[in-house]
Amino acid sequence: MLENIYTSRKLVKEDYKEEMNSLGLRLSEMQRTCKDEGIPVTIIFEGWSAAGKGSRISTLIRYLDPRGYEVFTTDKTTEDERMRPYLWRFWQRLPAKGRIHIFDRSWYKSVMDGHDKKESALAAPVSDIKSFEKTVVDNGGVIEKLFLHVSRKEQEERLSVLAGDPDTAWRVNKADIKQNRKYDKTLKRFDRMLNETNHEAAHWTIIEADESRFADVKVYRTVLAAMEKAVQIKLGKAADANNKSKSNGNVTLPSLKGSSKLAEVDLSLSIEREEYGSRLKTAQSDLERIHNAMYKQRLPAAIVFEGWDAAGKGGAIKRTVAPLDPRGYKVAPYGAPNDVEKSHHYLWRFWNEVPKAGHLTVFDRSWYGRVMVERVEGFCSTDDWKRAFGEINDFEKQLVDSGIVLLKFWLHIDPDEQLKRFEVRTNTPEKEWKITDEDWRNRDKWDQYLEAVDEMLLRTSTDYAPWTIVEAVDKLYSRLKVIETVRDRLESALVL
Amino acid sequence: MLENIYTSRKLVKEDYKEEMNSLGLRLSEMQRTCKDEGIPVTIIFEGWSAAGKGSRISTLIRYLDPRGYEVFTTDKTTEDERMRPYLWRFWQRLPAKGRIHIFDRSWYKSVMDGHDKKESALAAPVSDIKSFEKTVVDNGGVIEKLFLHVSRKEQEERLSVLAGDPDTAWRVNKADIKQNRKYDKTLKRFDRMLNETNHEAAHWTIIEADESRFADVKVYRTVLAAMEKAVQIKLGKAADANNKSKSNGNVTLPSLKGSSKLAEVDLSLSIEREEYGSRLKTAQSDLERIHNAMYKQRLPAAIVFEGWDAAGKGGAIKRTVAPLDPRGYKVAPYGAPNDVEKSHHYLWRFWNEVPKAGHLTVFDRSWYGRVMVERVEGFCSTDDWKRAFGEINDFEKQLVDSGIVLLKFWLHIDPDEQLKRFEVRTNTPEKEWKITDEDWRNRDKWDQYLEAVDEMLLRTSTDYAPWTIVEAVDKLYSRLKVIETVRDRLESALVL
Repeated sequence: MLENIYTSRKLVKEDYKEEMNSLGLRLSEMQRTCKDEGIPVTIIFEGWSAAGKGSRISTLIRYLDPRGYEVFTTDKTTEDERMRPYLWRFWQRLPAKGRIHIFDRSWYKSVMDGHDKKESALAAPVSDIKSFEKTVVDNGGVIEKLFLHVSRKEQEERLSVLAGDPDTAWRVNKADIKQNRKYDKTLKRFDRMLNETNHEAAHWTIIEADESRFADVKVYRTVLAAMEKAVQIKLGKAADANNKSKSNGNVTLPSLKGSSKLAEVDLSLSIEREEYGSRLKTAQSDLERIHNAMYKQRLPAAIVFEGWDAAGKGGAIKRTVAPLDPRGYKVAPYGAPNDVEKSHHYLWRFWNEVPKAGHLTVFDRSWYGRVMVERVEGFCSTDDWKRAFGEINDFEKQLVDSGIVLLKFWLHIDPDEQLKRFEVRTNTPEKEWKITDEDWRNRDKWDQYLEAVDEMLLRTSTDYAPWTIVEAVDKLYSRLKVIETVRDRLESALVL
Repeated sequence: MLENIYTSRKLVKEDYKEEMNSLGLRLSEMQRTCKDEGIPVTIIFEGWSAAGKGSRISTLIRYLDPRGYEVFTTDKTTEDERMRPYLWRFWQRLPAKGRIHIFDRSWYKSVMDGHDKKESALAAPVSDIKSFEKTVVDNGGVIEKLFLHVSRKEQEERLSVLAGDPDTAWRVNKADIKQNRKYDKTLKRFDRMLNETNHEAAHWTIIEADESRFADVKVYRTVLAAMEKAVQIKLGKAADANNKSKSNGNVTLPSLKGSSKLAEVDLSLSIEREEYGSRLKTAQSDLERIHNAMYKQRLPAAIVFEGWDAAGKGGAIKRTVAPLDPRGYKVAPYGAPNDVEKSHHYLWRFWNEVPKAGHLTVFDRSWYGRVMVERVEGFCSTDDWKRAFGEINDFEKQLVDSGIVLLKFWLHIDPDEQLKRFEVRTNTPEKEWKITDEDWRNRDKWDQYLEAVDEMLLRTSTDYAPWTIVEAVDKLYSRLKVIETVRDRLESALVL
């Protein structure tokens, strides 16, 4: 994309002033429109050293309401960041609906800075970056990627001016000089990276940046166009809300290979109390030892609990974490999203709790809400939940690739058993808090949920993150199966 | 507090089991009550090395619902933490209403670990810690401080057992050994610290910890008592809601020395456009230079903007940040708190944006909402806003003591000027978004706000964080006064 680009395009001063004034007013208006429409806008600046990223950003924000944007600098990773998947820190920094986040360097930094071996080792593979960008855009976000391109000669001049001024000399480091010396080789590397990451969801725009006036205008126009497009899509979608055939049906899924995972489940499985007691004791003591070893080996793990209301998630979680050092795990419960969570991508609140090296997060309900409650209750569009299977598989792959052991449990009971448990809860004063009207309402939709769950289990059982279906009518059997599965999976992930 | 404490108190096994069972059930019930009542509970564990903090925490959580608590370990500070006031990281970790946060070491770590010079240098003074604890408790939180006390002999035995087992040897370090060797001297130091930080809002409880069964029971009982007391206070307060004389009136304020700061303000002050233009240009170029120097000198700053609706905060902010490198500042706008913010102490959301070393945060409205809108609209009790003056002064003192330059602007206009501006906004299509029904409603309460603002200016103008009242009828005059004041204050804070 970079070869044969004429970097030194010019604009005369008078044209520039007039043009910027008119673009600025439009940008300022567009910021308000995006705020009103709840569109989150991410703008990233990459490019050559001394290509003028800082100055372009300063100009870009000139017409923006400072209360609505934030500028982030991507520096070397902190220790906290190194203990988590690479993209974690960028998920943290994604804008809420209606806000604009501008990045001076971005998730491409590690990919591009070939000289820094330590940082590059952390980089997410290009496929992860692309699926990250795609899911942000598919869920209504804007990502505009700008690459500031300068010629070798221009870069050389700028670096020597910077280096010559005592006030700015600190901005120039060895890597910058080296980049200029090896310009042609670097250009090829940049070009390859740009080509590989130029995709439908988020194209690159090359900004010819030898001349700052030209660059400013192109940045403004590009950003404006991206925001305008997003608004049109949003309004288009909104206008089509009644026309389901249009707003839905764009996502098609491969037909299901298996017909049902739940049909085969043998809910009569049970265990004697005595055997349960002794095996539980063994498993818990194993788990205590394994959890310590995980901490020492810096092995992170995540356990997802899903299941019918009253299937016994709470009891299973309690017995699983009981033997663990509380400083090394966290139980993260998820209900309906709060208003901060609602203003973000649906995966955002789960990314916040991704375990760091050596730690365990237990997810009490999870991102699977997207393909269960959100699907059944109509909280998202058909396209949204259909797309979610792939998004979830990609998300889980990133976790596993980063070294996290991921376990997923579906606690299964039948409607009769659920009814019995609901009645016990209703009639036992100290258990009454456990049952709500919503539980009864969900129960009425058993068949719809059953269909959704079955499809979820079929579509999101992967090699790297398989589901474990737990026969949960007998509580003792269920708890033991959970804890023994956790024990075995974690143990096999340890380096002995 | 530690001298003459008999650390090796015992409990026979049978009594222990029975007692723990009954305490456990009460704790589990109390957790639900605190959740229902929205009481945030913080429990901190301090004490001698090898006193059994980890084990006591493991036992404490045995009966807790894992979805409602979280355990934090206080390690060495991260770089991110070192760039902010010491207590910042603990504000971040305070529990939301209804949750329980348990700390294995706490804000006392730096104070107690006398051996680690680097960490100790960061420690907050005892007065900051006490005012931190007091404001948490005064605003409905529970803080229970437990100190685990073991005898010299018991500690020595435990350390040698730990050191002798290859699985646990890594837990023992030089400082632990030294602590045991210099037990008497350390005891005196601990004792002094405990005495100094034992205050009405948060007392210390010494846990005799040579014998784990005794220690467990005492931990449970202490925590239970603290939670029960908080519930009673809460319910008592709630029951008294109609009886204003009781729930309010506990806080008395010194009488105001000055009668009014606003009465003297000369709103006729203005400036010619030409002079404005040239002085603005100079000030902005100065500010650009100063901002770079701040970054290099790692000087942090915070600027608070308050003022009447339509007083021109937005315009003043825009011109102040215009010359700055966007990577070095952030504008943090504050409106009504969202539901996450509502579930925390009112200062929590502002602590989140405290600037780090070398950075600037512009607060567009601020913690002063407590003594203006919350006071006038009755969103908090009279005691709450009366207490807030002192809480705010303490908070700002902590910021300033940590090295932050703090500026506070009140943009002042009169009702006639406001009406003019409201009318312009209503009648100008591109400005219409700036005016809401709420602005008109606030306007109706001008006199109440005036009284609140005047009292605020008098009570929170301190040596370390004085208010600057800006005569804002003439917009040019107002903007210039803001930016020149910022320039002068920041400049004088730099080391030349």
